[in-house]
Amino acid sequence: MPQHPFVPVIPAGGAGTRLWPLSRRSRPKFLLDLTGEGRSLLQSTVERLAPLADRPPIVVTGAAHEAAVREQVGGSGAVQVVAEPSPRNSMPAIALAAALVERDHPEAIIGSFAADHLIDDPEAFARAVAIARDAAERGYLVTLGVAPTHPATGFGYIEQGAAEGRDAVADEHVARAAGPGALPPGAHPVTRFVEKPDRERAEQFLSTGRFLWNAGMFVVRASLLLDELAAQIPSLAAGAREIAAALGTRQHQEVLERVWPRLTAIAIDHALAEPLAADGKVAVVPASFGWDDVGDFAALAQQLREHPVRPGGEGDGAAPREGDEGDTDDGEGGDVRVLGRATVDAVSSRATVYGSTDRHIALVGLDGISIVDTEDVLLVLADEQAQDLSVLVARLERRGLGRLR
Amino acid sequence: MPQHPFVPVIPAGGAGTRLWPLSRRSRPKFLLDLTGEGRSLLQSTVERLAPLADRPPIVVTGAAHEAAVREQVGGSGAVQVVAEPSPRNSMPAIALAAALVERDHPEAIIGSFAADHLIDDPEAFARAVAIARDAAERGYLVTLGVAPTHPATGFGYIEQGAAEGRDAVADEHVARAAGPGALPPGAHPVTRFVEKPDRERAEQFLSTGRFLWNAGMFVVRASLLLDELAAQIPSLAAGAREIAAALGTRQHQEVLERVWPRLTAIAIDHALAEPLAADGKVAVVPASFGWDDVGDFAALAQQLREHPVRPGGEGDGAAPREGDEGDTDDGEGGDVRVLGRATVDAVSSRATVYGSTDRHIALVGLDGISIVDTEDVLLVLADEQAQDLSVLVARLERRGLGRLR
Repeated sequence: MPQHPFVPVIPAGGAGTRLWPLSRRSRPKFLLDLTGEGRSLLQSTVERLAPLADRPPIVVTGAAHEAAVREQVGGSGAVQVVAEPSPRNSMPAIALAAALVERDHPEAIIGSFAADHLIDDPEAFARAVAIARDAAERGYLVTLGVAPTHPATGFGYIEQGAAEGRDAVADEHVARAAGPGALPPGAHPVTRFVEKPDRERAEQFLSTGRFLWNAGMFVVRASLLLDELAAQIPSLAAGAREIAAALGTRQHQEVLERVWPRLTAIAIDHALAEPLAADGKVAVVPASFGWDDVGDFAALAQQLREHPVRPGGEGDGAAPREGDEGDTDDGEGGDVRVLGRATVDAVSSRATVYGSTDRHIALVGLDGISIVDTEDVLLVLADEQAQDLSVLVARLERRGLGRLR
Repeated sequence: MPQHPFVPVIPAGGAGTRLWPLSRRSRPKFLLDLTGEGRSLLQSTVERLAPLADRPPIVVTGAAHEAAVREQVGGSGAVQVVAEPSPRNSMPAIALAAALVERDHPEAIIGSFAADHLIDDPEAFARAVAIARDAAERGYLVTLGVAPTHPATGFGYIEQGAAEGRDAVADEHVARAAGPGALPPGAHPVTRFVEKPDRERAEQFLSTGRFLWNAGMFVVRASLLLDELAAQIPSLAAGAREIAAALGTRQHQEVLERVWPRLTAIAIDHALAEPLAADGKVAVVPASFGWDDVGDFAALAQQLREHPVRPGGEGDGAAPREGDEGDTDDGEGGDVRVLGRATVDAVSSRATVYGSTDRHIALVGLDGISIVDTEDVLLVLADEQAQDLSVLVARLERRGLGRLR
C-alpha cells in the first residue's frame, strides 16, 4: 500500500476528577507527572508518538491550558498546539485536527491518542499503529483494541467480528457489505462498540475471547473521517473544515469564535465509531502494550506498585520510591509508595502517598489507602472506593469550595 | 469518723505518645482539650476535684510545663503548682505532694488523680471519693477501682478480697492481719494488684466478678503514705520530706536540685500499693463513673462517638461535631467526628479527624481511621492498630526528627 503522511492528534482535555486533588482544573491530569518518570503524561504521549509522525503532532487543548501545554511540549515546533475556545467533547477536537491535516494533505492518516494514558511498551504500540495505518490506508476507521487483562467495568469494550485466521472470510463479508478494501494481517472487523458493562457482563465478554478494551485510539484518513462525519453530522464536519480553512488568515479568530460554540458536543465513539461499525467500516488492531488510563487512585496505586521506579527519575521531584519503612528488621512489613517530596514513616501499612508539602507523614496499620497531601486539600481515600471520589468533587462547587477544584 | 482536710494531688506528667502528634512533648495530653468541651483534661480534672477539696489541689508537673499549667489552672491560688526538675515517675511526685500536705496538716488526707483521664459522672466519682476518704481515715491506702466494662488488656487490674456482704468477715481478717480499722460500707480489702493481662487472662478476671481496673487513683493519709514509704524505700520518703521542709525557704532550690535527682524513679503501684496489698493495708472502692484514660486514638475515637457534643462548647474552637456528610439524602451514610477547625467532607466513611490547619479534608470509603492534620505532621492511623503508634514515635529521635515529638 502507498504510505501517506501520518500525523498524530492528541486531544488534551478531561478534568481527571477521580485524581483530585492531585489533578485540578488549573492543572489537569495530562500536565502531571503521575508516575514520577520525570515527565508529564502529555510529554510521554508526545515522546511516544513523535518517532511515528511524519508531521508534528497536533495537540488540541482548552484555551486555559494552552500556555502550559506549549511550555511542556511546544518547544521549537515539535508539536502544533490548537486551543479550543471551550470544551465540546472529543469529536469536534479531532474533527478540527483532521481538517487542519486534510487542508495540507488530503490523503494523510491521522491517529488520535489521549494525552493522559500510560503505555508501558512503546515498541508494541508502534507495531500496532503501523498495522492500523495500513488498515486506515485501505479505507477503515481503525481503532486499537487493548487485550483485556481482567473484567474491568470502567472501560467500554469493542467486539471483534472475526477471530485470527478467519480474516479472509470476514474481509470478504466486510468488503461486500461496506466497500473498504481487505484488512491487513493483525486487523479485524469490528461488530460493535459496547458501553461500560457491569461486572457479570464484563466476565461474559472476557470468556468469549472476542472483546477488547476501547482505549479511545483511532487511526483514519483525515478526509475519510470528515467525509463520514459529514454524512452523520454535516454541520460538525463543515464547521471543522471552515475553522481549519481560516487558520493562518485574519479571519481565523472571528471564524473560530463564531463556529466553535455551535459544533455538536459529542464523543467520537457516538458520532462516528458506533454508526460506522454498524456499516462494517471499522477495524480493530488487538494489542497488548501495557495500556492504562490511570482513571482513579486505585489504578494509580497499582501502577506505582508495578513500576516502583521508572526511568528518567527527577522531574519536579516526584520520583516514586518506597516509603521509609524504618527498621525493616522489626518485621513490620508494609508497602508504601511515595510520590512527591513528603517524608513518610509507616508501620504495617500498604498505602500510596502523594505529598506536595514538607510535612512529615506518619502511617499506622493502613491497608489499601491513598493519601494526597497538598497545601489546601488533604484527601484520604480507600482504594477500593476510588470511583466514589467523583461524588465529592462534584459537590465542591455547591458548597462554595469551587476554588479547590 | 473525724474528717480531716482533703487535699487533691494531680500528677500532671506523661507524654501521651499514643496520641502523637496531637500531643507533643511541648504540649502533652493533659494540656489538650481532647473532647472539645472547651477545657483541657487538666482543667476538667481540677474542676472535678475542686468542690471536694479543703485546700487548693496540688499539681505536680515537669518544669517544662510549669508555665502552661499555671496559665491553665493557676489563677488566683486555685491550685498549688509544684515543678519537678526532672521526671522520676509517679512515686516521687506523690510523695513530695504528700510531704507538702503533711508539713501543714499531718492528718490530712490526700487523693491522687491523674491529670489526663476522663470521668463522665462527677457525682458518682464524688461519692466514691467520700467512701475512700472514710477508709483512708481508718488507716488504709485506698484505691478507686473501676468496674470493668470489657476485658481490656491495656490496664492493670485490682483483685478484691471480699465480695459485698462479706465485709465484716473480711474486715476482721484484715484487721487481724494488718492493723487498720474496719472498712466502711463500699470499701473492700485488696488481695493484689495485677499488671496488664493478656486477653485470655482479662476474660478470666471478668468472669470472677472480683477484678477492677486500676485507674491509678489513690486516697491516703499524707503521713501514713510517707511512713509506709519510709518502711519500703527510706531514702525516697526522707528526700520528699526534706524538699517539702525547704519549700518557701532560701534553701529550697538548692535542696530540690540536690535531692530530687537521687529519688528513686518508681511508680506508686510498685513502691507502695503492691507491698501494702500483700500486708492487707490496701482497700478498694469499686465504682462506675465513666472513667477512661483516653490512652490512644482508638479510645479517643470511641469517646467522641459516645459523646458527640459535650457541654461547654467553644474553647479553642475544638468542639467535636459531626463531619459535614453532605447530602445525607444521598444515602451515603458514614460517621465522621471532627475535632478542630478543619472542614471535612466525606463519602461512606467512619473516621475521626483532628484538624488544626485550615485545609479542606476529603475522605472516601474509610472505616475506623483517625487522621491528625497539623502544620508539620500528618498522621493517618487505623484505630485497630492504635497501640502501634508508639513504635513510630519512639523512632523519631533516631531519624533526626526529634523536633516533631
